[in-house]
Amino acid sequence: MSDKQFTLPRGIRDIEPDEMAKRNWVYERIREMFRRYAFQEMEPATLEELRTLEAKSGPAIKDEIYWFNDKAGRSIGLRFDLTVGMARMVAGRSDLPEPIKLACIGGNWRYDEPQFGRYRYFTQWDAEIFGSDDPTADAEAVALSMDILSNVGLKEFEVRISNRKVIQGFVESLGLKSQEKIEAVFRTVDKSRKISAEAVKTELRSAGLESNVIDSLVEFISIQDKPASVLEKISEVQTRSEEAKLGYTQLVLLADALQGLGKLDRCLFDMSVVRGIGYYDGIVFEAFDKGGEEVGAVLGGGRYDRLCGVYGKRSIPATGVAGGIERLLISLEKADVLPKHKEVGTVFVAAVNDEVRQHTLSIAAKLRDARIPSDVDVKRKSLAKQLEYANSLGIPYALIVGPQELKSGQFKLRDMKKRTEETLTLDEIITRISRMPSE
Amino acid sequence: MSDKQFTLPRGIRDIEPDEMAKRNWVYERIREMFRRYAFQEMEPATLEELRTLEAKSGPAIKDEIYWFNDKAGRSIGLRFDLTVGMARMVAGRSDLPEPIKLACIGGNWRYDEPQFGRYRYFTQWDAEIFGSDDPTADAEAVALSMDILSNVGLKEFEVRISNRKVIQGFVESLGLKSQEKIEAVFRTVDKSRKISAEAVKTELRSAGLESNVIDSLVEFISIQDKPASVLEKISEVQTRSEEAKLGYTQLVLLADALQGLGKLDRCLFDMSVVRGIGYYDGIVFEAFDKGGEEVGAVLGGGRYDRLCGVYGKRSIPATGVAGGIERLLISLEKADVLPKHKEVGTVFVAAVNDEVRQHTLSIAAKLRDARIPSDVDVKRKSLAKQLEYANSLGIPYALIVGPQELKSGQFKLRDMKKRTEETLTLDEIITRISRMPSE
Repeated sequence: MSDKQFTLPRGIRDIEPDEMAKRNWVYERIREMFRRYAFQEMEPATLEELRTLEAKSGPAIKDEIYWFNDKAGRSIGLRFDLTVGMARMVAGRSDLPEPIKLACIGGNWRYDEPQFGRYRYFTQWDAEIFGSDDPTADAEAVALSMDILSNVGLKEFEVRISNRKVIQGFVESLGLKSQEKIEAVFRTVDKSRKISAEAVKTELRSAGLESNVIDSLVEFISIQDKPASVLEKISEVQTRSEEAKLGYTQLVLLADALQGLGKLDRCLFDMSVVRGIGYYDGIVFEAFDKGGEEVGAVLGGGRYDRLCGVYGKRSIPATGVAGGIERLLISLEKADVLPKHKEVGTVFVAAVNDEVRQHTLSIAAKLRDARIPSDVDVKRKSLAKQLEYANSLGIPYALIVGPQELKSGQFKLRDMKKRTEETLTLDEIITRISRMPSE
Repeated sequence: MSDKQFTLPRGIRDIEPDEMAKRNWVYERIREMFRRYAFQEMEPATLEELRTLEAKSGPAIKDEIYWFNDKAGRSIGLRFDLTVGMARMVAGRSDLPEPIKLACIGGNWRYDEPQFGRYRYFTQWDAEIFGSDDPTADAEAVALSMDILSNVGLKEFEVRISNRKVIQGFVESLGLKSQEKIEAVFRTVDKSRKISAEAVKTELRSAGLESNVIDSLVEFISIQDKPASVLEKISEVQTRSEEAKLGYTQLVLLADALQGLGKLDRCLFDMSVVRGIGYYDGIVFEAFDKGGEEVGAVLGGGRYDRLCGVYGKRSIPATGVAGGIERLLISLEKADVLPKHKEVGTVFVAAVNDEVRQHTLSIAAKLRDARIPSDVDVKRKSLAKQLEYANSLGIPYALIVGPQELKSGQFKLRDMKKRTEETLTLDEIITRISRMPSE
């Protein structure tokens, strides 16, 4: 039987140990910030009834996700993000005091075409605040996002913020009333970072916009600068519609809150930010790793005040943020900030012959009781083969056990990298290794 | 629209914050032991080609799992355990130095009938050693299991160990040669803990066994005691067949290794342990929470030397252990050893009026920078409502900010449980709270 016979489905992969060690490090740093911002971690269901997913995204979602009919004939979909499940849960729970601050790190499935950094199974972190329509909540989501990026070691990132209400109000004031056309505008604007100004104009022309409308819009979405400066430049938008005025006021309050949180200096207001996802209806933002823009935003978020209403009796305003772990790892690899350590043990307890094997086990047990990650031969290898194995895994120390050592109570501790040896008692070895800084 | 309209598929649920906090605590304690025993964590793919799952378990597995045809017409199954994916991965990787010690905590799906403590989506921890046929490897798996149970706080548990080769050799020596009948015997023996001796006999009679064979078998599987005592009682089995002799020798070596690891005293050898899963072919074991036997084993494991050969060119001996998180949580709840803490923040920074709101944000940011989990009002609630919210979540402290406090730099820190207040500077508050032991 060939090794190749059992392949994985397209776009699906194992997470191998080296990557997993990095992921666990990243997850723990993200969780640290969830805790510090007082978000409660949970995990929404992995499987949803298809209609729950369709209720948010329309029947077209079927083409983009994994779904199937189960043995009882019910249509079931694999979750494609974490926000929908959280919103569905919150909408069904009127007992929770608001705001409800939930966070999750979890896997999702999409039947997309796999590409660089994108898989059909991928992991996201997600933090949401349900029950507040105040821009302070959006500011908290932005601040959390920035502290997460800092905490995983990204130094060069920028956060770009806007408000869909402002763009919507602006566009409406140009005479565009059909929500369908406005959605098309949003989709084009969302791409404007990746395509040329000419391509943007061409798309807007195809969407049926007149050229003076296109010129005004292209000029408007090119506004990006420090928040105070953008608020000044777009101040005129307040006179255009109630929607735009509300959006503008929200941005003013957001800037105040970000100032309070000490985060305003690292933020830009950028009128071209609208986010691709349809359910956003207010403040939106995304963060980019400087120099890593080609892999796209490392996180994105925004306000979706109408989504919970789809799932329950109550209308619950909500805002939040999510980021993809796979993309984040690409940025972190590039920035070379991920830890190099492997979970392979600190000490390999090696036996010089078969007679002392039981003693290597007792010594490994003592080291483990002293919280020192330890490994031991389980293949009855020769001493040379044991050391070769320890070396190939990158285990930093070998403790060598022979009849002489057991008699004297003095063991050789070999530094596998430096290729030096010291003779020490077991207690001395434990003290020595416990005092070493772990990476 | 009714709250009830969007329900979850049967047997599928959200993991809500209180349970998630407990899970994260348990996961971290399990991971601590993975590291201490030098297992590398990884995660096998969530989706497998159906034939990968069938290769191990036969086409009947379709009835027990979630599977579907994807849009490209391929049959895909959701993983139903972690061992299969690990074995499939290892079989395809001839570059890894052996033994390969892999561990995982991950979700699995089975299309079972939901019952108490069993769901259609459930989480397992799993640790496997690939590439050693020596009972020392089994002993390491048993020792890891015991240290995991101790580390999550289970004090009263017992580990029951046997060897399928011994039972198989014994049964064969009674004249039973058909592997089909032997499998039927294993299935009945596996149930013998849960059903009466009479019921066992009835089942064995239906399987076509003669009554003298049944009597011998029932007597044999009733042997359970301290390892040394069992090895004496069953010593005669070595003369019955080569298989039984090999199995006996493995149990002797296992006992030696467990002695070396300091774990033998807490183990029983129990000839009725065979494990239900078909791929086991050597040493098998399971652990029970004393007093919680009705929820079944909290973990189980064993040797499956033939499984990797199904997935690759090489035959790789393997042994390992897996445990269900849901069942473990039931035992831990009963033993009342789970932490009570919620991830809701340590300090709620409350504003006495709207003018000071921006300052509450700066103060929360300072507390967070000092690693103190902190929350702040994002709903422009009255002070009374803010404190009510903090109280309902169980946040232990409130820091109250008003114009006076900002002028004097002296803030009231309210202990929400004791209902006492102290007036302190922000630095004093940070020092005070940082020194408190976190639960």
